[in-house]
Amino acid sequence: MREALKADRPINKIMIAGAVLSGPLQEIFTKAREKNIPVQKVDRRRLNKFVPEASHQGVVALVAAREYVDIEDILVSVKPGEAPFLFILDEIHDPHNLGAILRTACAAGAHGVIIPRRRSAPLTPAVAKSSAGAIEYMPVARVANIAQTIDVLKRKGLWIAGADAGGNEIFWDARLDGPMALVIGGEDKGLGRLIKERCDVLVRLPMNGRVNSLNASVAAALLAYEVLRQRRKALKDEGVFSG
Amino acid sequence: MREALKADRPINKIMIAGAVLSGPLQEIFTKAREKNIPVQKVDRRRLNKFVPEASHQGVVALVAAREYVDIEDILVSVKPGEAPFLFILDEIHDPHNLGAILRTACAAGAHGVIIPRRRSAPLTPAVAKSSAGAIEYMPVARVANIAQTIDVLKRKGLWIAGADAGGNEIFWDARLDGPMALVIGGEDKGLGRLIKERCDVLVRLPMNGRVNSLNASVAAALLAYEVLRQRRKALKDEGVFSG
Repeated sequence: MREALKADRPINKIMIAGAVLSGPLQEIFTKAREKNIPVQKVDRRRLNKFVPEASHQGVVALVAAREYVDIEDILVSVKPGEAPFLFILDEIHDPHNLGAILRTACAAGAHGVIIPRRRSAPLTPAVAKSSAGAIEYMPVARVANIAQTIDVLKRKGLWIAGADAGGNEIFWDARLDGPMALVIGGEDKGLGRLIKERCDVLVRLPMNGRVNSLNASVAAALLAYEVLRQRRKALKDEGVFSG
Repeated sequence: MREALKADRPINKIMIAGAVLSGPLQEIFTKAREKNIPVQKVDRRRLNKFVPEASHQGVVALVAAREYVDIEDILVSVKPGEAPFLFILDEIHDPHNLGAILRTACAAGAHGVIIPRRRSAPLTPAVAKSSAGAIEYMPVARVANIAQTIDVLKRKGLWIAGADAGGNEIFWDARLDGPMALVIGGEDKGLGRLIKERCDVLVRLPMNGRVNSLNASVAAALLAYEVLRQRRKALKDEGVFSG
């Protein structure tokens, strides 16, 4: 475990048994905190579900299906002449949804996806499977605080568009063709207040009265392809686009 | 069982044990065939997984989470002045995808969904859950043959648009604003040749080189909302739309 932490293996979460930590467990706890890895104190029996009692020594690390990146890594991957295109996923809990969004983000040519360190599905094998391979290509950054991250991105010139049922513009009518981060809320409760306040625009998806929300991965896809459509139209209007 | 068949309870499938049928089992088999309910001959042990050996008497019926309708029921539900808007799902096997498509179809104001009697996820509780309640509102018809069904719908004036990676038009450029059935292929292999040949137009979704397909429920949603966007634009151009 200490070796895994030293070697910077990608870790989703560390679970430690016992309310009071000492010796090596305390050391691991401190190290994990330094590296911003979520640490969860759990009952010993919880650990036994992952590894046999004899071999876990009171601590288990859940290794990620793929290495996380930093937001800077995502931004420097944007080629000259391209406008940055990011997804910010605020508390997507369902691994199927996260995987499907990675797949769509990849298909739509996004540069990266940002998720919160806590209260989000991490990059697990289930996410990898739902992504149909896209997890290998789509960089994912984990951040401590989504609201602060939005502030950082705004200072870098990105336009922040949040999907919200109470949004004041239908997504087709909003301008989504510049440097862009799309913010998609969790399955249960959509975007939080602090996030909404920071969005430059809140867009809604038109909906029939009988259902009042769409699956999070469907909402993400509709917005992603609207960005694509508008960018293509902008290029066409300039006579650049040939496809 | 015979009572369930007589009472027209919605049945996804009947499973019968034994290669040679006689007496009541033969009678149930014949009745099910008359009613176009798929019958599967299985090993007795398969049935024991569903019901205790003592109580199944060699036959098990899997009841649907919701009643199926006929295509005629869907078409007569179209209000005067509305253009019919249907989904045809060719071999969607994943209940999550079927549920998500029912939810999107409902949100997009579609009139109904058509699935094949065999080689498709039927309306199970898992589908109901993924539909987030939409299964109650979105009529689903099961048909023996999708290709023949397309012929029938074409004779009734519907335009048939299939989603296909080799389609000759990008979906934004195809005309999708009239009476419409969108055809979505299964997760593994897309649309079959017989289906493709019958489509009035095959549309493709633009995609980055790194992934070569989208999740079926995502593809369905992108096309559904493109239909909506074009209908809204048509109404706007006529000065009718106010939303």
